[in-house]
Parts: sequence; C-alpha cells; structure tokens
Amino acid sequence: MSQTTAKRPLTTLQKNVKKQVIVRLKNEVEYKGKMSNVDSYMNLIMTEAEEHHDGKVIGKFARAILRGNNVLFIKLEDEI
Amino acid sequence: MSQTTAKRPLTTLQKNVKKQVIVRLKNEVEYKGKMSNVDSYMNLIMTEAEEHHDGKVIGKFARAILRGNNVLFIKLEDEI
Amino acid sequence: MSQTTAKRPLTTLQKNVKKQVIVRLKNEVEYKGKMSNVDSYMNLIMTEAEEHHDGKVIGKFARAILRGNNVLFIKLEDEI
Amino acid sequence: MSQTTAKRPLTTLQKNVKKQVIVRLKNEVEYKGKMSNVDSYMNLIMTEAEEHHDGKVIGKFARAILRGNNVLFIKLEDEI
Amino acid sequence: MSQTTAKRPLTTLQKNVKKQVIVRLKNEVEYKGKMSNVDSYMNLIMTEAEEHHDGKVIGKFARAILRGNNVLFIKLEDEI
Amino acid sequence: MSQTTAKRPLTTLQKNVKKQVIVRLKNEVEYKGKMSNVDSYMNLIMTEAEEHHDGKVIGKFARAILRGNNVLFIKLEDEI
Amino acid sequence: MSQTTAKRPLTTLQKNVKKQVIVRLKNEVEYKGKMSNVDSYMNLIMTEAEEHHDGKVIGKFARAILRGNNVLFIKLEDEI
Repeated sequence: MSQTTAKRPLTTLQKNVKKQVIVRLKNEVEYKGKMSNVDSYMNLIMTEAEEHHDGKVIGKFARAILRGNNVLFIKLEDEI
Repeated sequence: MSQTTAKRPLTTLQKNVKKQVIVRLKNEVEYKGKMSNVDSYMNLIMTEAEEHHDGKVIGKFARAILRGNNVLFIKLEDEI
Repeated sequence: MSQTTAKRPLTTLQKNVKKQVIVRLKNEVEYKGKMSNVDSYMNLIMTEAEEHHDGKVIGKFARAILRGNNVLFIKLEDEI
Repeated sequence: MSQTTAKRPLTTLQKNVKKQVIVRLKNEVEYKGKMSNVDSYMNLIMTEAEEHHDGKVIGKFARAILRGNNVLFIKLEDEI
Repeated sequence: MSQTTAKRPLTTLQKNVKKQVIVRLKNEVEYKGKMSNVDSYMNLIMTEAEEHHDGKVIGKFARAILRGNNVLFIKLEDEI
Repeated sequence: MSQTTAKRPLTTLQKNVKKQVIVRLKNEVEYKGKMSNVDSYMNLIMTEAEEHHDGKVIGKFARAILRGNNVLFIKLEDEI
Repeated sequence: MSQTTAKRPLTTLQKNVKKQVIVRLKNEVEYKGKMSNVDSYMNLIMTEAEEHHDGKVIGKFARAILRGNNVLFIKLEDEI
C-alpha cells in the first residue's frame, strides 16, 4: 500500500467515530445518527439515531449496538 | 483509539449487564428484558423478558440464552 | 467481568445440563425436553423431547443431537 | 464438566457410529439409515439409507457422505 | 476412534476418487459423473458429468470444479 | 504461480485503488464510483458514487464503506 | 493422496489460469470468459467476459473481480 496515501476502509471508519453516519443493514433498514464507536468487525454503537425504511422514519433510539455482520454499508456524512 | 474516549461496542455492551435492553433478532422478533450477561459473540442471557412482534407481546420467559449470531441490534435503554 | 457476579451465557448453559429446556431453532420449530448435554458451540443432546410448531406437538424422540448453529434461543425452565 | 457424567454431544455422536439414525437437514429432508461414521464437523457417512420428505420415501442409496453444515439434528434410534 | 474400523467421512471420500458419484448441491441440482479429485473442504473436480434437476438432464460438461460449501451430499456409487 | 505473470485477484484489486469501478452486491444493487481504497476482505471505500438498480439511479453519496462480505463482483473500468 | 496422480481441485484451477471458463454463481448467473487469475478462496479475475442468464447474454465487461464465496462451480473449457 506504499503507492497510495488513501486510508484502508477500517481506518477511515475509525476516523469517523463521533460523526453522523447512515448505516444500511442487509434487511434494507437504515439507521441515521452518530456513530459513537465501531470495531474491526463493524459492530457499531449508534446514538440519537432514527430508523428509516422506504423513506419513512419507523423508530428512534437513544443508543444501540448494531452487530457488524448485518451491515451492508455505512455512508459517511462528510457534509453534515 | 487513543484519539477518542468512547468505548468500543463490546465494552459498552458489558457495561450494560444487569440493565434493561431490547434485543432485535434477524427474524424481526424483539426481546425486552434484563440482559443478565453477554459475551463477545453477543450470546446473551435475558431474564424476565417479553417477546414482541409487530407491536404485540407474543411470549414471556423467566430466563433464556439467545445465540449471538441471530442478533440484529441491542437497544440500550438508558432511560429505563 | 469482575464488576458482576452474573455468569457468562455458556457457563449458565452448562449449569442447566440435565434440566428441562425449550430450544427454538431458526426454522421456528421448538424442542421441549431434557438438555442432557451441550458444548460451547451450542450443540445439544436433547432427551425425551417433544417437537412443537405453531403450538402443536409434531413429533417426539428419545434422544437427538441438535447442531448448534441452528439455535435461535434456549429457554431455561427454572420453574419446571 | 466434572459435575456431570453426561457425555458431550460429539462424544455421544461418536458412540452411535454403526447404529441407526435419522438425520434431518435444513431443507427438511430426512435420511434414515446406518451412520457408518461421523466427524466433529458432523460430516456423516450414511449407508443403506432412505430419503424421506413429508412422510414419503423419495429416494434410497447404498452409501453417501452428508456435509455437516447442512445438518439440523440427528436422532439417535436407541430403540431400533 | 480406536473402537471402530470404519473410515472417517473425508477419508472415505478420498478413497472414491476416480469413481462415479452423484453430488447434490443445496440448490437441488445434481451432478452425476466421475469425481476426479476432492479436498477436505469438499471442493470437487467432476469430469464427464451430467447436470440433473427434477429428474431431467439439464446440462453436460467435460470438467468442472464444484465449490465445496454448496455440497449437500455426495452419493458413492458403489454399484456402478 | 511462477508459471504465470498474471496478478492475483486481490493484488489486481489493490492496483485499481483510486480508479472508477462498478461494485455489484448480492442484493443486485450496483455502486458506480471511485474505489478510494479496499482491503483483503473486499471492504471498500467508495467516493462520489451512484447507486443503481434495474438500470436506474436510486441514490448518490459522497463517501461510504461497503462491507466486503456483500460483494458479488467488482468491475474494473479499464476504459474509463 | 499418494495413491492417485489426479490433481487437487485448487491445483487444477490454477493450471487453467489464462484459459476460457464458465463460472456459475449462486444467483444462477454465469460468466463466460478468460480466467486471468484465481486464488485459493476462488476469488477470480475474469476478462473479456459475457454475463449469461436463462440462456441470454445480459452483460459484458472487460475485466472484473468475482468474490469467491459466491461461486457455485467453474467449468473448465478444455475444448475451447
């Protein structure tokens, strides 16, 4: 990897701890909130998060642990 | 991780042992009760728990072991 | 784990060997009987067990090995 | 495990080599015949076996290797 | 395993290299032909094989590698 | 591998970091954009990407981490 | 394996690098083209490939990495 200055995916994920993200799980539900922490398996702590499906808010929670194996992708909200 | 004081997901989970949680499994059923213990695989002991589906209570049990690989997420009920 | 006297999930499971349990598999079928033994993968020996689905008994067997990866949860029948 | 004389699931399985068993796979098909051998992954050699589905015999074979990850449970036919 | 002269499943599989087999995959398709080789993961080389589904031949091929994790079972055609 | 000058799949993937790719996931959705980085598990950072399904753009994002286990294939856009 | 001169599946696969193959994935889609390289996990580089489904060409690409865990089988086109 010496030929590139880009960060590895898990390093980039760590650098976004405490930032807003949108996590989509394999069941197509999305979680929008703060990624309080994450580990190399992509287990996540989400705080002050909304649960979205088909464009609608279907739930809210103060804090939850998402199990990494269910993650499809994590959008980094650079703009937020 | 020296740049953040946030706890890793599994550490946070351990700190919530003996507290109320809501566990959602991949089959969309939720378990609401006390998380008596948990391991790093997210195997859980739930006690005095209700089983919920589509907003209805569909079962109750005194104590059960949930196998970690079925877990979608665990809501930490900070407010309870 | 020094902050809690609760047992880890697999230790609790071991302590219930030779007791009555209800095992639910991912295919929604339940097995009610004696857990003669269990290992850390949640492979189980069930004896004198009934097979239940949708509230009906659909089978019985004297002894069977259940493969752990199919387990959804194991209810410990503290009351039985 | 010093507190119990019960055998671990895989040990019990080994002790039933050369005996009659009924193996149910995740696809709900059952195989009834002699378990000629088995390993710790639950790969099995079945001999002189019948294939059952929905209570009907749908096939027969002299000898086959079943891949362990498909196994739901193995009934030990103590009575046979 | 000293109490039995039966071979372990993977050893038995190796002894059938270059013989006729029927391999059923999880998608219910069967491959009937010569098992030119196999490894411990049940990856197989099949040669001069027919592809069967619902009792009909749906394809033929001279040589193919089947990935082991798709295997449901392998019938050893002792009679062929 | 001394008999060939072709690169191994993961090496080839690394050589395409910072180039345009199309990633298709198992759920049939495609992501078209720059692969900012990738690891050996095929976890990817995609930037300035469009989300496609059935030939239509269904979303856009500035930057996201895709979890490798969901990847079906990655088209390398040599022509772009 | 001393009793046979047949090659192991992964060795055979390596010997077919730079040859024409047909790869069928678990989703029933087939890729027909040159296997530029492959690793032990069956991750493949396919070049100048056509994508087939239900007997029709549904796509083409110059070069792509297929993730090995999706592979059902790889036909070696000895005749091509």
